[in-house]
Amino acid sequence: MEINTAAVIGLGLMGGSVARELSVRGVRVLGFDIDPLTRVAALRDGVVDAVLPQSMEGIAEAEVIVIAVPVRAALEVLRSLPVHPSLRLVTDVGSTKQSILGVADQLPVGRWFVGAHPVAGDHRSGWEASRLGLFQRARVFLSAAHHATGEAMKLAEGFWRELGGQPLFMPQEAHDETLAWSSHLPQVASSALAVALAGARVERAELGPGGRDATRLAASSPEMWAEIALDNATELEGAVEAMEDTLAGFRRLLEQGDLAALRDWFAAGTRWSAGCRENGGNPVECVAAAPSAG
Amino acid sequence: MEINTAAVIGLGLMGGSVARELSVRGVRVLGFDIDPLTRVAALRDGVVDAVLPQSMEGIAEAEVIVIAVPVRAALEVLRSLPVHPSLRLVTDVGSTKQSILGVADQLPVGRWFVGAHPVAGDHRSGWEASRLGLFQRARVFLSAAHHATGEAMKLAEGFWRELGGQPLFMPQEAHDETLAWSSHLPQVASSALAVALAGARVERAELGPGGRDATRLAASSPEMWAEIALDNATELEGAVEAMEDTLAGFRRLLEQGDLAALRDWFAAGTRWSAGCRENGGNPVECVAAAPSAG
Repeated sequence: MEINTAAVIGLGLMGGSVARELSVRGVRVLGFDIDPLTRVAALRDGVVDAVLPQSMEGIAEAEVIVIAVPVRAALEVLRSLPVHPSLRLVTDVGSTKQSILGVADQLPVGRWFVGAHPVAGDHRSGWEASRLGLFQRARVFLSAAHHATGEAMKLAEGFWRELGGQPLFMPQEAHDETLAWSSHLPQVASSALAVALAGARVERAELGPGGRDATRLAASSPEMWAEIALDNATELEGAVEAMEDTLAGFRRLLEQGDLAALRDWFAAGTRWSAGCRENGGNPVECVAAAPSAG
Repeated sequence: MEINTAAVIGLGLMGGSVARELSVRGVRVLGFDIDPLTRVAALRDGVVDAVLPQSMEGIAEAEVIVIAVPVRAALEVLRSLPVHPSLRLVTDVGSTKQSILGVADQLPVGRWFVGAHPVAGDHRSGWEASRLGLFQRARVFLSAAHHATGEAMKLAEGFWRELGGQPLFMPQEAHDETLAWSSHLPQVASSALAVALAGARVERAELGPGGRDATRLAASSPEMWAEIALDNATELEGAVEAMEDTLAGFRRLLEQGDLAALRDWFAAGTRWSAGCRENGGNPVECVAAAPSAG
């Protein structure tokens, strides 16, 4: 990679994994994390070459800055970033893009800002969960500030591709609308299932393999997800309401005792799992997306 | 195993796996499946020694009969079983127990009936998905007909333990109430998420690893699950309604923009994932149930 020095702010699952990928590619990594133990671990593991102070003194050496903290802190970090001569790219890893682009659009540093959302990771979090290979074949959505330079956009694309990802530019509004469904709703559904089971005093150990799959995301970081949910509240409200309606529709079929309609209801999920696109309830095309593959 | 001959009716994921376990233990297996191709495959794979005709002629040789067809067909099979002198146990693999016990309680063959629900398997189904080891360390709930003999109950326990499971007797009412939450609700939640995503034209390939986990169960057999849901309709309605209420509660917090309350909401799911028992919102004990372990 044609970068000498990068700064990674936040060394959790995402930031830690970015730092590891950069480190093995010979990039000098400056790192910061709010947690002193994480800073020590990142140095001890030989991934971070130097720890940045809270003042971010020394960050002017970095050509690329990766912001990898929860969204509200990310807005603060972005606002506080000084513009320095060697700067070529500022990117992030947040699951929502409208709020951070809203800030980037107002700032001089926005000329170098291309936000990223790598669709990678799982319910684990923190430095200990970070690993090489996390971004391998992962979709990475990119949204550039309105005054971002073509050079910054090109570098962002190359940066995330070099880390193993599959970058794709998407306007921030479309991103947040899509991700409310494809990422945020699955998290809320998994958490809601866990919360409902907790309320019924059913323990996770009582579940079968499928139930454990369905609730795995519920172990994700509450701090991070509360911020994501709030940051994408309007879109997510619609998605959650659709899920409530779907469940209520199922419950009506149960009350009616309609076996054929219940079978159709479950079958719609099965067809979706098999990668079928539908047109008014008629499958028009099914791709070989073997559900057991992932 | 001190059984010479067993009959397995239905050679899907569960029945096929029972047949495989019996076969490797030297038990002679008589098999039946409604699908001719499955019958051929089970013979070809050397698991089933002889195929039973639809009339079930020849079943009198079996000391143990395992019914492994969807619940409505299972009731029919049970009603049609002849009582023969060498019979020692009739068991099943159904996810609900009240309806089949209701039938068994009325029949002479009920003296040998001990229903079983192995909490094993996943979204896959059919003979091709059946495998050795499926029941390893799986909880197997047992419910005996009211006039079942002590010998049949003892044999049922030994049978399922021999196949790798962990048998536990539970009255059928308590079983169905518990499983509505621990098994049937996770299935419905996963399917509902898939149905909602299908409605929003979001494809499975767009999901990250966590979303794929959350929707994996949606690929399960619609025929089987429609019957399970209907068979346990009353209990399941309550569980689904609780899930709707949980989602609606989350949506209210979103509307209120209450970050702290949203964090608490997600944290309740995280604590549950970590195996914490709670008392009025206060965790009283957390066991080391690492969510990543399964």
